[in-house]
Parts: sequence; C-alpha cells; structure tokens
Amino acid sequence: MPVLRQDLLTGEWVIIATERARRPETFAGKKEEERSIPPARVANCPFCPGNEDMTPPAVLVYDERATPPGTGVSGKHGGEGGTAAVADGWTVRVIPNKFPALERGVHGEGAVLGDRCGDLFRSYQGYGVHEVIIETPDHNRHFADLEEHELGLVLKSFEDRIVALSRDQRLKYVQVFRNHQREAGASIEHPHCQLIALPYIPPLLEKEYRRAHDYYLAEGRCLLCSLLEEEERIGDRIVLQNDYFTAFIPFAAPLPFSAWIVPREHYSSLEVSAEGWEKKLAPILGGFLERLSKKLGDPPYNMYLHSSPLRSEAMPYFHWHLEIIPKLTIVAGWELATGTYINVSLPEEAAGYLKVPEGEKVETRV
Amino acid sequence: MPVLRQDLLTGEWVIIATERARRPETFAGKKEEERSIPPARVANCPFCPGNEDMTPPAVLVYDERATPPGTGVSGKHGGEGGTAAVADGWTVRVIPNKFPALERGVHGEGAVLGDRCGDLFRSYQGYGVHEVIIETPDHNRHFADLEEHELGLVLKSFEDRIVALSRDQRLKYVQVFRNHQREAGASIEHPHCQLIALPYIPPLLEKEYRRAHDYYLAEGRCLLCSLLEEEERIGDRIVLQNDYFTAFIPFAAPLPFSAWIVPREHYSSLEVSAEGWEKKLAPILGGFLERLSKKLGDPPYNMYLHSSPLRSEAMPYFHWHLEIIPKLTIVAGWELATGTYINVSLPEEAAGYLKVPEGEKVETRV
Repeated sequence: MPVLRQDLLTGEWVIIATERARRPETFAGKKEEERSIPPARVANCPFCPGNEDMTPPAVLVYDERATPPGTGVSGKHGGEGGTAAVADGWTVRVIPNKFPALERGVHGEGAVLGDRCGDLFRSYQGYGVHEVIIETPDHNRHFADLEEHELGLVLKSFEDRIVALSRDQRLKYVQVFRNHQREAGASIEHPHCQLIALPYIPPLLEKEYRRAHDYYLAEGRCLLCSLLEEEERIGDRIVLQNDYFTAFIPFAAPLPFSAWIVPREHYSSLEVSAEGWEKKLAPILGGFLERLSKKLGDPPYNMYLHSSPLRSEAMPYFHWHLEIIPKLTIVAGWELATGTYINVSLPEEAAGYLKVPEGEKVETRV
Repeated sequence: MPVLRQDLLTGEWVIIATERARRPETFAGKKEEERSIPPARVANCPFCPGNEDMTPPAVLVYDERATPPGTGVSGKHGGEGGTAAVADGWTVRVIPNKFPALERGVHGEGAVLGDRCGDLFRSYQGYGVHEVIIETPDHNRHFADLEEHELGLVLKSFEDRIVALSRDQRLKYVQVFRNHQREAGASIEHPHCQLIALPYIPPLLEKEYRRAHDYYLAEGRCLLCSLLEEEERIGDRIVLQNDYFTAFIPFAAPLPFSAWIVPREHYSSLEVSAEGWEKKLAPILGGFLERLSKKLGDPPYNMYLHSSPLRSEAMPYFHWHLEIIPKLTIVAGWELATGTYINVSLPEEAAGYLKVPEGEKVETRV
C-alpha cells in the first residue's frame, strides 16, 4: 500500500509510491566506460586557466602554491597531492556572474518600479549579487573527483563569500547551489557552484525557520538535532558518516536518492561552525558523491546549502545542512500543481544501495 | 536591471532576469516538418481501442455516437466532424491507474503505520484514488489537435469525476493534471490526463486559499477577479479571450510562457460553474495550446487545475483556473533550494509573441 510520510523540516507530506516503487539499481544511468570525458583544458571555456579575461575580475582567489603549509586555509595541504589542480595562480576562483539573475543596481534599495503594474501589481528593483565559484582549474574534474583538500577549499570559499557579503546590510540571505550536468541546469561544463545573495529570505527557508522555531518553543531543542539522533538510532537510512557529519536519505525523502548531509554537532551556519568544518565535511560529501556517481552512473544532480540568515549569531533552533537531489525522475504536473512529491524509491532501499561497498550483494527489500 | 515581481496568488517573489532575458522566438523547439507523428493505432498501447482489457475496467465512458444530438453532454456535436475520434464504443474513457500513486486501502482511514518511524516520524496509510483520462481513441492526436467538441468532452469528464469522487467523504481534493510529452513526465505516449484524489488539501492550494481569503476579508472581493480585471485593463499580457474565458501570461509568471486560463465570471469550481462551461473553455484552451505548439514547436508542457476543495459550495473568495507551464528551461538548484523562480522571459513579450497571428511581425521589446 502507498504510504504518506511527513517531512518534519517543511511539514509537507510525501507519497512513497510503493505500488510503483523501483528497485535502486533501475535508476542507474550510463556505465563509466560509456561516458565521454572532456579534455583538461578547453580553449574557449571562460572558466579555464588562461581565459581569466573572459570573465569579470575575481572577488576571491585561493592559490594553494602561494600559501606555505600551516599559514592559511589553503596552506595546510599546500604542495601535497593535488598539484594537477593548481594552475596559473589559482586553485579556486570566485567571480561575479557575467549574466546575473540579480545585481547591485543604480536605484536605491527597494525602489518600486511601475513597469506594467497598474494599481494591483508590485514590482521592485531586483537588488542582489550573483557569483560563480570555479572549483578547479581542470575542466574535466568533477566535484566528486576532487581530492579532499581541494573539496575543502571550495567549501571554505562558501563561508568566505558569505562572510564578505554579510557586510552589505541590504542582503538577507546567501543561497549557495550547484547544478551537475546539463540535465540538471549546468549551462557551462567547467565544474562550478553558484551563489545568489538576496534582499529577502526565500520562502522555503522561511518555512524551515518557522517549523524549527515552533519545535524549539515546544520541545526546547533543535528539530534537526532530534531528527538526526532518530535517524542514527534507526540506522537504516544512513549512507555514511564520520565523527562530524552524517549523510543519509531522510525518512520522507521527496525524490529518489535525495539526501541530506548534516553536521552532528549543532551549528546554525558555516560562519559559526567550529574552525576546520570544511575539512571534516570534505570526506563525507566527496564520499557520498563518489558513491552516487559509481552506483548510479554519474547522474545529474542539484546540491544546495540551507543555513541561517546573514549576520545571525549562533541560533539554537536552526541547524545548517546540505541537500543533494539527483535528477533521476521528471518533476511533472503533479508536483507543479500541488507543491508535493511522489517518491518512487523507498528511502531505506536507496540508502542500503549506496551504503554497501561495490561488489557486495544488497538485500534490503522487505 | 533585474526586477522582482510578486505572484499575488501565492505571495512569492519571481525574479524577472532582464540581464539574461531571451527573446520569445529563441524558445522555439523543433519545426513542424521535423517532428515525427506516431500511427493512429499502436498494437501494444494499453490506451488504444481494442486493448481495453489491458487496463482496469472504465469508471466513466463517453460515446459520442451512442448519444443522439441534443440529449446529453456529448450529444450536441454527435455525428458532426470528429468521427475519426469515435471508435469501438468510446470517445473518452476514464480508468483507474494500474500503478496508482494512492489507492483506497484495506486499512482504516488515517491508519498510522510504524514503518521505520521511531518516535519522531509519522507515516500514514496513503488513502486516495488515481485515475487516467484517455482523451481520444486516436494515439496520434494531441490535446491541441482535438476538435472543440472533443476537447469539451474531456473537460466535462473532469467535472463528472470530481462530482463522483466527492461522494467519498474521506477525500478532500481532486488534483487534475496533464503531462505533455516524455520530457514533461508523460510515460505513455497515448494522449491522456490524470487525476489524483487526496485525503488532504495540497500545500500550494492551501496557500492560494489562505491568500485569497485574506484578500477577501480585507477588500470584500475575489483576488483573482481583481487580478483578471487589472490584466484585462492593462492588456499587454492577454493572449486570447472570448466572452467567458481569458488566457494570459501573468504579471509574475514564474517560468517562460507559463499561462493561466481563467473564467471571466467568478466561479470557485467546475461543479458550480454555469452549465456548458466546457464548451466555452474549449476554444480558448485549444486555441492557446495550438498557438503554443505552432509558435514554439510543440514544446513539452504541464497543465493543471486549481479549484476549491471537494463538496465546497460556491465560495466567494476562490476562483478556479487552469495553469499551463511549458517546459522550456530546466528547473535547477536555485528553484529547489529556495522554492522561487527566475524567469528568463518577459511575460509581456511572451504574450505578445503568442498573441500575434503567425506570419505577422512581432515587436514588443521596449
């Protein structure tokens, strides 16, 4: 029988469609040997080294080679291992988006625009910042291929940019996200993340803050701390973890293999997390993405960060997390009409499939 | 400069990305002559005439030939024109979905299931109904290809099924939707709509009811009546209309060419609409889809109905409408993360492009 499960963070009901459920292996895409790998450098790629003048000037650059070991965020692993990723003076490069969805405008904050509005409609100047995080000089190395210390640098750049942008009092939230492959919305092949800084709190975040706050008032603790404790106690849906982070397919996952990665200690944002969080997260995020890629044939996916508002001190009720949504099915009329999801994969089975090392037999269906 | 526009029905802010805006014609897909047309009958298609035993028994059948003109909903045009669509005793056929997302179960209503829930999570029996509306016996005639009287019959079947399902007091809402083409989620090629009857009100509908109710309490009238009046007064975003229905690209359209079709008189549901509403809607819906198909190369799209809850009498504050969302861009990390949209097409330009008859020059950019 089909089952309704409630997503505790958003309050929404997800239909787990047992009658049309598919076994985990049926979601697998192309095999590794069938996939084409682009070259390491592409002459006309605006994100490849040597083409820096094709983009606006960088707002942040990490250069692993320039930092002696032990003196900075990127220094710790400087010179070790990933020298292939160091080229032309940068390891990670953050630039303004050349075609921004939002930008800092010439009008004042919240300028009301009368464009074809009439009396009823409202239109405002779209104030904001849109940046691109170029993860590596190498055109052909995916996020999941990066060494841990390289992945850590990319993660650290999120925090550095959030801290820098939080100085602009007009900005309320920074949304960091990543689109992997064209089918998931990546219009440029060279591996990159994006961030958009907004003058308002996005509605999904507002919903999560509200529910987390209600739970905190009722129970005196953080909802995601409770949820994570329960997921760890049950264990079925955990994919992998270390002492600091847990990656799991949540109880009410809206889509097949959609996952959360959550810090095991309570932190409301990257900025208030314990120093070095990115080095602890890198093996879990990298490990999860590597399993996703190997077990499901490098599927397209979207990844994003949910964090507390800009400039918020440590908040006792909100708990930052990453969400990873592989694009394995088509979001269609039902989802657009209702704002809810039908998941054709059982979260326990999806987790079990990713959990077991390759080659071993998986048997989770009950 | 990018602009923020508020969707009055949902309250969400849409970013109209002027810096990355694309001209209407750049969204066009394949030309008519490049598209392959399947045959009228497909031997192993479960929805083709002669294969009725491949599906569960029908819950509703219209047979145009069986009804003499003037005696029933389907009789008016019986024998005229669309005889190609009449075959093997049915014109429209509604059947239970063989692989339902929800079904009427063996457990009692709202039975709590303890499946891997622990103390925190909640899981219920997924009570509901999932049906398929086979729109025509012809495998190769799209929704936009149907004659007006055939399209009217399909629309009428929505009302008939909603009325029948409303007798089940456990059901609260019926969501009717349509996925056009595989890219928009249609897993079976034969033209069909679907409906899912739910034991709860979906969150997007709840949000629309709330906002419409708030507006009604403040202003003493229906929000969508006000909105439609304003859109008609401004005129730029209207694509086509007759005395009963208006099709337009709304002020804060979330995605390129996403449209609403709204009855010009206030009705809260199909069931309370004036007799014959489907015959008035058919030319506007058919005309809109035909323009979409011709001007944009038959793009995939999703369509859905937003109506009042089951068994509600005429409601003064909610106004039923159809939404049509062509799949012309990829919904990616940003939209999943925030629950908001970036529209890379100006609603006025999209409407202007669809409004002008083919062959005439379009000039709307300001």
